[in-house]
Amino acid sequence: MYRGDTICALATPPGVGGLAVVRLSGPEAFPIADRCFRGKRRLQEVPSHTIHYGSFVRGEELVDTVTASVFRAPHSYTGEDTVEFGCHGGMLVAEAIVEALIAAGARLAEPGEFTRRAFLNGKLDLVQVEAIADLIYATSVPGARLAARQLVGGLTNRLRQLRQQLIETAAYLELELDFAEEDLEFVPREQLLSQLEKAQQWCQQLADSYRAAEILRSGFFVGCVGYPNAGKSSLFNALLQRQRAIVSPLPGTTRDYLEESLFIQGIRIHLVDTAGLRQTEDIVELQGITLAEQVVRQCNLLLVVNDVTEGVEHSLELLQELRERFPDTLYAYVQNKVDLLTEIPLDTNSLGEVPVFWVSAVRGDGVDGLRRWLGEQARRSSELGVDALVNARQADVLRQVAQALEAARHALLGGLSGEFVAADLRHAVQLLSELTGDTWREEVLNTIFARFCIGK
Amino acid sequence: MYRGDTICALATPPGVGGLAVVRLSGPEAFPIADRCFRGKRRLQEVPSHTIHYGSFVRGEELVDTVTASVFRAPHSYTGEDTVEFGCHGGMLVAEAIVEALIAAGARLAEPGEFTRRAFLNGKLDLVQVEAIADLIYATSVPGARLAARQLVGGLTNRLRQLRQQLIETAAYLELELDFAEEDLEFVPREQLLSQLEKAQQWCQQLADSYRAAEILRSGFFVGCVGYPNAGKSSLFNALLQRQRAIVSPLPGTTRDYLEESLFIQGIRIHLVDTAGLRQTEDIVELQGITLAEQVVRQCNLLLVVNDVTEGVEHSLELLQELRERFPDTLYAYVQNKVDLLTEIPLDTNSLGEVPVFWVSAVRGDGVDGLRRWLGEQARRSSELGVDALVNARQADVLRQVAQALEAARHALLGGLSGEFVAADLRHAVQLLSELTGDTWREEVLNTIFARFCIGK
Repeated sequence: MYRGDTICALATPPGVGGLAVVRLSGPEAFPIADRCFRGKRRLQEVPSHTIHYGSFVRGEELVDTVTASVFRAPHSYTGEDTVEFGCHGGMLVAEAIVEALIAAGARLAEPGEFTRRAFLNGKLDLVQVEAIADLIYATSVPGARLAARQLVGGLTNRLRQLRQQLIETAAYLELELDFAEEDLEFVPREQLLSQLEKAQQWCQQLADSYRAAEILRSGFFVGCVGYPNAGKSSLFNALLQRQRAIVSPLPGTTRDYLEESLFIQGIRIHLVDTAGLRQTEDIVELQGITLAEQVVRQCNLLLVVNDVTEGVEHSLELLQELRERFPDTLYAYVQNKVDLLTEIPLDTNSLGEVPVFWVSAVRGDGVDGLRRWLGEQARRSSELGVDALVNARQADVLRQVAQALEAARHALLGGLSGEFVAADLRHAVQLLSELTGDTWREEVLNTIFARFCIGK
Repeated sequence: MYRGDTICALATPPGVGGLAVVRLSGPEAFPIADRCFRGKRRLQEVPSHTIHYGSFVRGEELVDTVTASVFRAPHSYTGEDTVEFGCHGGMLVAEAIVEALIAAGARLAEPGEFTRRAFLNGKLDLVQVEAIADLIYATSVPGARLAARQLVGGLTNRLRQLRQQLIETAAYLELELDFAEEDLEFVPREQLLSQLEKAQQWCQQLADSYRAAEILRSGFFVGCVGYPNAGKSSLFNALLQRQRAIVSPLPGTTRDYLEESLFIQGIRIHLVDTAGLRQTEDIVELQGITLAEQVVRQCNLLLVVNDVTEGVEHSLELLQELRERFPDTLYAYVQNKVDLLTEIPLDTNSLGEVPVFWVSAVRGDGVDGLRRWLGEQARRSSELGVDALVNARQADVLRQVAQALEAARHALLGGLSGEFVAADLRHAVQLLSELTGDTWREEVLNTIFARFCIGK
């Protein structure tokens, strides 16, 4: 078992709420807790999985009345002795409790350190660890659901099955070598080829689902771009159905960029209002525009907002330019300010592949339709095709597994000796072990736990 | 005992964290919990104050792996049967758990409803209830400390002592009436006068501490005001020691107002950067300036920022105008941009009562000194003189108690019959009962619980 020092941290989100929980874990958890907790019994003496009411003190000063939940090793989240103090919400009380525990001998936990200990103590594998991060940061209902399934071993089990299968196959291939003179074939080649192809496809498909998984994980980013005074901020507000951006008829009003999000069909849509994209010497606007460039690059979809009173084709050049620079992004051309038109031209609902929407951000015409369309695009872009929520690291390793399996197939088809095939399979097995954390390297753990917050 | 339906809500702050807790309380808490929880045992059967690990499901769908903490009535926060589900942090999981509990028969709790039940079940008095809100929203270390003391009955006990004393005195006075013909005096008049005067002073002092308590509660508000381009935003950033406001040499850059806070000596100082106070026809700036007016009104202290390159007396008129309009506010006159001066005039560290600071927001000269001075002003303004954290409602009732006691003293000094004195004392007793919640009116409760968040 992993033996570290005793760590503590606020486990609940910072901010205002009814309840905050401070977690304390490690070999000295009970003695340290007893230095600060005044209840009917000492926490060292009580059974595991029991809750005790009392006062949390720092020296003689009462900090708060609290509950202390006691978990004895190995039956805790970390696998170590653990006490969780439930105190009144609000930052200062929880901070004071953490400070008192540190004064009593604990150390402030690093981000993800509780979960790292859970991993090192064999309470969680690496895919489960990453599922926890996905669950915490989930911004979509389907994403959270997949992460929860992964948390209880859904993906891990299938990866371990595949690994086991490859280990056995490799072992048989190696066994054949011992009987090389008898020309035995323990593994029928046809069957092996089909097995490898299936496994390779599965890994590749999982890896390819990563981009869609990112939308389930972080949301779908929609940018409002356009020339100054096209009504980007008004459209932004209309889509959000409430006022957020300061709006004025003067060009260049939006200086920073604004971001707000809304849920459509369980998926988070981030709406980003950018500063007007134009050449400018104005220093303040320039800061805003540099920001806009970075932001536009990250968007899944761009709404090119056009002021119809300047002509319906006024922003076509901008659309063209953007499509050339960011060809993988989705686009819509929004003809804004239709309230100022007397009629809308017929048969103008698309520009080639780019749909055209006729709206009045100010009066509300067409805004609902645009919002629905955005939800539809988000849903389509996040269709995974697989039953797992793959992240960047996993996609990368899975791609390598697929390559190793491809290499094994090539060796097989090329009539190479079984030992070459077995070597490729062993490589794939090694990669799969890294994926689940059955073997691991310190750098990999550091990268994974860097995503975690303090207190997890 | 109060019997309501079964309510549930997220008890921890919304946002990203390692852990979130959903609280479920009411007569049906255990059956409802068992509809969603799959563990080794049914929660209806387990002892109070125990913790159980299991799966939280909605229908057949796994939502998360959770801990369920069980509290049996009356040994819970609310005094009712209660289950607290600890799930992985992040909004979506907790939301899904709340939704599933509602689908299983619970109702979403209203703000403060758990605490309201605790009050109605006699687990907390009204002063303790208000102390909880103060603890949750505490922004200062001394404020949190006083609230914690109030939570365990510090103030309540003293208020009840006073009430008891007044009840007894009134009873003796009324008894004297029964023996009016014998001209008995159960309560020596000298002693009574001194007792009433002491009590009155204590109540008045408590009531008067309210303004300082507000600073401990909400923080000390410091506004940066001045003519355009005086360097308000630069000073704001320099005081915060990091960049927050967009700064440019063009006047009128700050359009909304910005607010950030820093801690000095355990007290939260809110720094507010306002739009330039000038006559303007610019629509965007006008929105900003209307905001600034409201904000300036709420500040405890105003820094009038002057551009020394425009002359050291350039903003004196503005200072004068502000002092006339807001005479209760503290002021400092900040001579900014001293880096552009070749020398600083001697003996210019105050303008009458208003201290003058010579700083360069850009280069940093004098900023530390100004920050220290702000901390000192905040500390002084929040000195209570009493050992309690009084809020607006309490101050109001305490003032009425003081008046009733004053009236009793007057009646006594005016030689009025004991029944008049006793009536005033009874009135004071009634007010004290309202203060602690020994008697209460629905409207008062509603006002108090309106301050609470959902989940408390």
